[in-house]
Amino acid sequence: MLGQMQSQALLISSLITHAERHHGDTEIVSRRVEGDIHRSSWGEIARRSRQVAHALDGLHIPQGDRVATLAWNGYRHLELYFGVSGTGRVLHTLNPRLHPDQLAWIINHADDRAVCFDLSFLPLVQAVQALCPGVQHWIALCDADRLPADSGIPGLLGYEAWMGQQRSAYVWPELDENSASSMCYTSGTTGNPKAALYSHRSTLLHAYGAALPDALGCSARDSILPVVPMFHVNAWGLPYSAAAVGCKLVFPGPAMDGKSVYELLESEKVTMAAGVPTVWQMLLGHVQAGGLKFSTMKRTVIGGSACPPAMINAFNQTYGVEVLHAWGMTEMSPLGTVNTLKNAQLGLSADEQLNVRLKQGRAVFGVDMKIVDDAGHELPWDGKAYGDLLVRGPWIIGSYFKGEGGDPLRYDASGKGWFPTGDVATIDADGFMQITDRSKDVIKSGGEWISSIDVENIAMAHPAVAMAACIGMKHPKWDERPIVVVVKKPGAEMSRFDLLNFYEGKIAKWQIPDDVVFVDAIPLGATGKMQKMTLRQQLKDYVLPGL
Amino acid sequence: MLGQMQSQALLISSLITHAERHHGDTEIVSRRVEGDIHRSSWGEIARRSRQVAHALDGLHIPQGDRVATLAWNGYRHLELYFGVSGTGRVLHTLNPRLHPDQLAWIINHADDRAVCFDLSFLPLVQAVQALCPGVQHWIALCDADRLPADSGIPGLLGYEAWMGQQRSAYVWPELDENSASSMCYTSGTTGNPKAALYSHRSTLLHAYGAALPDALGCSARDSILPVVPMFHVNAWGLPYSAAAVGCKLVFPGPAMDGKSVYELLESEKVTMAAGVPTVWQMLLGHVQAGGLKFSTMKRTVIGGSACPPAMINAFNQTYGVEVLHAWGMTEMSPLGTVNTLKNAQLGLSADEQLNVRLKQGRAVFGVDMKIVDDAGHELPWDGKAYGDLLVRGPWIIGSYFKGEGGDPLRYDASGKGWFPTGDVATIDADGFMQITDRSKDVIKSGGEWISSIDVENIAMAHPAVAMAACIGMKHPKWDERPIVVVVKKPGAEMSRFDLLNFYEGKIAKWQIPDDVVFVDAIPLGATGKMQKMTLRQQLKDYVLPGL
Repeated sequence: MLGQMQSQALLISSLITHAERHHGDTEIVSRRVEGDIHRSSWGEIARRSRQVAHALDGLHIPQGDRVATLAWNGYRHLELYFGVSGTGRVLHTLNPRLHPDQLAWIINHADDRAVCFDLSFLPLVQAVQALCPGVQHWIALCDADRLPADSGIPGLLGYEAWMGQQRSAYVWPELDENSASSMCYTSGTTGNPKAALYSHRSTLLHAYGAALPDALGCSARDSILPVVPMFHVNAWGLPYSAAAVGCKLVFPGPAMDGKSVYELLESEKVTMAAGVPTVWQMLLGHVQAGGLKFSTMKRTVIGGSACPPAMINAFNQTYGVEVLHAWGMTEMSPLGTVNTLKNAQLGLSADEQLNVRLKQGRAVFGVDMKIVDDAGHELPWDGKAYGDLLVRGPWIIGSYFKGEGGDPLRYDASGKGWFPTGDVATIDADGFMQITDRSKDVIKSGGEWISSIDVENIAMAHPAVAMAACIGMKHPKWDERPIVVVVKKPGAEMSRFDLLNFYEGKIAKWQIPDDVVFVDAIPLGATGKMQKMTLRQQLKDYVLPGL
Repeated sequence: MLGQMQSQALLISSLITHAERHHGDTEIVSRRVEGDIHRSSWGEIARRSRQVAHALDGLHIPQGDRVATLAWNGYRHLELYFGVSGTGRVLHTLNPRLHPDQLAWIINHADDRAVCFDLSFLPLVQAVQALCPGVQHWIALCDADRLPADSGIPGLLGYEAWMGQQRSAYVWPELDENSASSMCYTSGTTGNPKAALYSHRSTLLHAYGAALPDALGCSARDSILPVVPMFHVNAWGLPYSAAAVGCKLVFPGPAMDGKSVYELLESEKVTMAAGVPTVWQMLLGHVQAGGLKFSTMKRTVIGGSACPPAMINAFNQTYGVEVLHAWGMTEMSPLGTVNTLKNAQLGLSADEQLNVRLKQGRAVFGVDMKIVDDAGHELPWDGKAYGDLLVRGPWIIGSYFKGEGGDPLRYDASGKGWFPTGDVATIDADGFMQITDRSKDVIKSGGEWISSIDVENIAMAHPAVAMAACIGMKHPKWDERPIVVVVKKPGAEMSRFDLLNFYEGKIAKWQIPDDVVFVDAIPLGATGKMQKMTLRQQLKDYVLPGL
């Protein structure tokens, strides 16, 4: 027997309709590429997103086709979020930090029909344009008088002239809620990038989940500044959650230095900000150097990579700002866990609380997670056992765009599919997950797992070590054995035996590396992460001691 | 083109699975019918709800069939919430405050297969049992040794003996998310009661919406005490939202007097409570008389009827407890609006804030609302214009159980169906809705509407008036004209003209009643509300002055 409730699809257009009707006057503030501060509102964003809808219809781009953006966080980008997805087209947010060749590959793989870009990315567009013959429309997000006459882009449109002439009345189509709404490519450390293809349903459920008090806690009382880019997993979904709750939004544009961000936080009375540790390091540096304080900011969401304890302490204890340590990934829309304390943990000491806060946090309702061993058996939630972290839920991908990479899911005995995150983690009895390693980096020795990160952290604590990478080497008996690859500090003296002795008592005997290899440099990727695959390549002729 | 996200139905079983996995140790505390305090946990509730599932399977009650409860707020009732709905049966919460004849009518109309009841309701069950031949199983929510030997109920089962022997391993079925999950009958002031038939999908979306920071703001840091009964629109959905966020729950059982509730609030460190104004009046009376304070309670949700300003002030200013004024109805699962201030309103003075707080609040994302005139045209959101309040959204009914009453929806020009709430309301520019009257009570005079409540409030301000009811009388020219029916205070002297003069300057001339009718008593319903229909019956021979 079916229930007798109203049948209403979960659609992204309902977000902007709600925001306009219930929060029309609430401000959307943007620092523009042009450098000035622009003030809009949910009502204005809604009106202009309907003009975008007409303008897209005018270009005869079919529903389901991709419309790409190459843009900083700002009001025009927000209008495209609703105008593109609301009409049934797929918003494809491109990462401008990619190499032009990668970018062209992604645009072609996605079959993007149009690309909307901030003028600051004109050189990048000029570099990729000839490589992307499938793109029929290039649209510069600027006023007509800023449009360069000699851009070299055939038929280049100016956004304001293009959409500004359209009517603002528009009836959003009643789509299937499982329709594709938007897409993001993963950074793709191995092989070609693959894309997550989100749906209206997954986006709306994520918007609800992310706004919950135990997640990002978004409300109409908030003024939220997403430093995390709208081209990076939809700024962690904040534009959608913000529309659902009608909070004020503050966009930093391209200016993410400490001074610029701090000025916006203060002038726009920001209560919550979200970004990666690197950005908060710059902000803290600026605040510390100037003896400043945060007048209105109550909490900051930190994700993208693990947040250092010193940063949590500085925000919490020096500045009275609560740190929400969060974890997710492109394939998860992205939110998986957020670290907010439970009732029973509020009575813990500051040190005990810090130990909890260092973890990546608890699953938001909608996400289930588990850790499994090599055979796929679920491991206990005791905070010690670690295994591959698998997740499932309605805002987690089932497969990649175009089926790339085949079926990524692992199926349990009851036939339920789980997405393997590629992380190795522990989960404690309270459900707090902590990532201990990447699955591809963990060393599997004699049926037991050794965390490469644990081995590296001990080496990094030695005064002579500048950088350390732990990798597994094939071993005929133990399958793999760890070695540690070390860059010494300039002028420091240290032998192989010095470092191996340093491990004694800090780690189980069988977890101590078999060898230390000194190198001049460890290869780093564009985001500063160690490239262990390249390192393994460089050491392909290396032989473990005793073999 | 469809998105490529995991296909996962929104099911009530996922709530209890999440609560067990992520919040298994979190406490569920109940004051029992027996008078003692019982301590359980989400893990224990989950385990026992799976035993209930086996036990229901053992009774061969088909999916879709109704299983009724007649119970106070407590852990066994919570187990039935998940055990009944999780297996695809429909949880039908009966209101024990109804007359046995009404109750029997409802049980028969719903085709209830089983009725699970607290022992305190045994006399009620004994009164209705013979009238309900369709009920195959009567189950008393008690231990085996408490089961009365001579109940007179053939085949009476004891809950603990019935479900306690079952296995606790159970695989919840993968249902269609639009399946019926639970049902509530409306109080039905006109005609027979009609039932809302909720679905798993509507329940889960409501659970997300109700837990948002701008709604009830439920989190794992909370200890929540629902005084609002689980037989009254599922305790405003709190059992579901609580499972989603894993908060502690505290159930008061039948003891809703000020002292009992206060003791639980303090001993269980309750942070949030929810109930109707009458209950809070008893609680405030107890606290004021004893010179007590609230040590842990941060906020209280008040709904069911309008909250008096003095109560809002007492909680906010004397005791530092935030009042969340909320509005909804059975047909809305029930949450429609909650009164939480917007960012821009935080700077208002205490008096200005109180004026906002008196309103019923803003729509939770998922609910859209509008006010319309007699012709169905939408009225402006200016805080002044008032009209019939219509709502739509995925947790609002589309029709009543068995199609009773036909299609209740009103359709707009684009074909969207809106549910008429039966209330007359204003909505201000910030989206705050305020109920000004019931649609059936508003007086329609010369194309304009007169709020019966406004007319009554002025009369009530006269020192000689004990009670006043404003009703519309047929008028050949004006369609209707208001009269005010008054009960004088004992010993008070007042003429018809005294009261009519009292209206001068307080209300527009044309809104002043045409007549005052003095009566000894105004008929009141079981919940203390004035029964205007009965009053109209009593005055059926009345003739307006001058006709």
